[in-house]
Amino acid sequence: MATFHSDITSIRLSPIVAISEQVRQRAPEFQKATGKEFILFQRGELDVPTPAYIVEAAKRALDAGHTKYPKSGGEAPLKQAILKKLATYNRAHGLTANNIVCTYGGQEALELSFKLFSGRKGAGFAPCWSCVLENFVPYTNVDFTEVPLGKDFRIDYGELEKIVKQVSFFYFNTPQNPTGKLFTEEEVRAVVEICRNHGVFVISDEAYERILFDGRTHYSPLAVGTDNVIACYTLSKTYAMTGWRLGYLATRHAEIPNLITLADYTQTAGVVTFLQYAGAEALENEREGERFIARSTEEYTTRRSLLYDGLKSIPGIEVEKPEGAFYLFPNFTNLIPSELTGEARNLFVWKRLMDAGVATVYGSCFGKHFTDNLRFSFSSTGAGKIQEGVERMRHVFA
Amino acid sequence: MATFHSDITSIRLSPIVAISEQVRQRAPEFQKATGKEFILFQRGELDVPTPAYIVEAAKRALDAGHTKYPKSGGEAPLKQAILKKLATYNRAHGLTANNIVCTYGGQEALELSFKLFSGRKGAGFAPCWSCVLENFVPYTNVDFTEVPLGKDFRIDYGELEKIVKQVSFFYFNTPQNPTGKLFTEEEVRAVVEICRNHGVFVISDEAYERILFDGRTHYSPLAVGTDNVIACYTLSKTYAMTGWRLGYLATRHAEIPNLITLADYTQTAGVVTFLQYAGAEALENEREGERFIARSTEEYTTRRSLLYDGLKSIPGIEVEKPEGAFYLFPNFTNLIPSELTGEARNLFVWKRLMDAGVATVYGSCFGKHFTDNLRFSFSSTGAGKIQEGVERMRHVFA
Repeated sequence: MATFHSDITSIRLSPIVAISEQVRQRAPEFQKATGKEFILFQRGELDVPTPAYIVEAAKRALDAGHTKYPKSGGEAPLKQAILKKLATYNRAHGLTANNIVCTYGGQEALELSFKLFSGRKGAGFAPCWSCVLENFVPYTNVDFTEVPLGKDFRIDYGELEKIVKQVSFFYFNTPQNPTGKLFTEEEVRAVVEICRNHGVFVISDEAYERILFDGRTHYSPLAVGTDNVIACYTLSKTYAMTGWRLGYLATRHAEIPNLITLADYTQTAGVVTFLQYAGAEALENEREGERFIARSTEEYTTRRSLLYDGLKSIPGIEVEKPEGAFYLFPNFTNLIPSELTGEARNLFVWKRLMDAGVATVYGSCFGKHFTDNLRFSFSSTGAGKIQEGVERMRHVFA
Repeated sequence: MATFHSDITSIRLSPIVAISEQVRQRAPEFQKATGKEFILFQRGELDVPTPAYIVEAAKRALDAGHTKYPKSGGEAPLKQAILKKLATYNRAHGLTANNIVCTYGGQEALELSFKLFSGRKGAGFAPCWSCVLENFVPYTNVDFTEVPLGKDFRIDYGELEKIVKQVSFFYFNTPQNPTGKLFTEEEVRAVVEICRNHGVFVISDEAYERILFDGRTHYSPLAVGTDNVIACYTLSKTYAMTGWRLGYLATRHAEIPNLITLADYTQTAGVVTFLQYAGAEALENEREGERFIARSTEEYTTRRSLLYDGLKSIPGIEVEKPEGAFYLFPNFTNLIPSELTGEARNLFVWKRLMDAGVATVYGSCFGKHFTDNLRFSFSSTGAGKIQEGVERMRHVFA
């Protein structure tokens, strides 16, 4: 029979899903041998349910009979709520409903943005979110170049410009997964300007825009005001709505919103109608929304400090303090035998931690430049578990 | 700046959406001039809300906290409900959860099925659902050949086999949009076998499987039992759930479910978690489900008879009686001046009906073989409106 197109056959299962599967298989024997549970630092899932005010809004929209086909590109109330949020929180002014497309999470916004450049060249900073490398890039047949950040996650502007000259788009994630780096206003402006100077689009992934530490401020590429920015947002992380699949895309480019609307229509016929009303409430009810975000920030701050201080206290581990998102990306070069290479090296620390019942994600999932690092997520790992995990690691490297 | 890929730039706005937009613009002047409303035969939308038992199931799933990331490919309860439905209603036996992928409506199931064959050759009967021609085909860069049905919508098996030999897949919609034709068990088996003999996949679109007239039975290509069938289903039309975007795909092919699961994950990260529980209830609560379907069937039967008898009674119109779905696709050749050609011919009747406040879809939206026909939908047009529409048409052609 006919074979299938490589756009689909070259996608790989997310390594993070594969790791979680391994944990599920190994957890019972680990429990039996040690009497202890696995400590899960591998997941990006949250450990709280969606706030009640959003759940209730979804129920009201169902009761109001918003069960018919969605309007292409998004329902008016959600678009209005998004515009207000973009103008206030993201300081992106002068946008109208025509600049917005509602999507199935940030995921579909990003996938469709990549799709605009099918078969072309793209680039992004390394380390890079695994889903870009394993999913979007093969699915859209993009030739993707990683522009490595420095060891302390600084931008090398010379290297950036050298690569940007050769591509159609640059994927830019701030706050960043897996490093927890928040790019400053100066850095964001520089990246957008360098891209614009070379006629290159910026696909901006701002999934973690509301998870910020130490009173820091997110600066959105959309705020620069140029029409080469395609900004992708999700309600998932901000409002614990990972299972709702609600996101949106905003751009000043005149043609893109219509193209993305047609592509979204082609893929799914649009975003679930009544959930768009709940999305509008999520964004518009600032009293409830800001209360939830403040509580989340407080909890994440506690966890980040515990995990950062814990990793920092283990000799040999080098770690940057995250400024946003809920990830740390420490380097273990000092703890890996220098003669190791290839997969044996990539998995060395990860395997030792798995044996100790500590699940993380190995650095090679995030590209080819930070393979001595591991990603730790504290999105669903409470303070007690974090302390237990740190003690196990201390024991492994003692 | 960079230009965009033709996969996206070649998608066209659905002509049906464009027609609805024209109706919205013309309705006020028509009302002012005649004191009457437009009669809307152009839409595939339903005129009833989703049954309460499904709405309540969605609320329960929200309250139960099913708000986290969905499981790739679908949640277990929905997959189980689907398997039971496939085994009973579709007589597709021996399937397991591994044969199923949950999707955003039949739309995403179809789009991903087409995506398997990106850049290849495909075919399908003409007339053909406009979304295939305007959306899936350009989006997946498929080279699509229309195999015309006869004037009475019979299959020409010689023509079918000639084309099937040259393609990777055949799109097969039963009951069919826009004709209302229900293919018999014999026809379905023949199509599937001819395709199998030539190593060709059947993309089966069974969106209207539960809208049947005169006690007829739907025979699913999946029931043939071969592994060249990719069957796409939706809850939209059966349960008045167009805005919920819930569907699924089932196939006996060993590789396809995993490929579609990865592609669905890449596009959207999976189907809204709590809605999958509501989908399970929709399928599993047979008492409520069958009651709703019986009521719908009764209403659609009344409308079909009124519209069929009405069209039949107008001299010059040739019309087949629909056996399923909620469309009629009458032929107007006798009423079009024989010297007319091209777009003037394609739009001749459609324009005259629009001037009379009767909105339909012109035949050229459904391919190049039935351009003297118009599609009439009675999905959201009640008995009174149908009678009024028929009288206006009688006047136009008097």
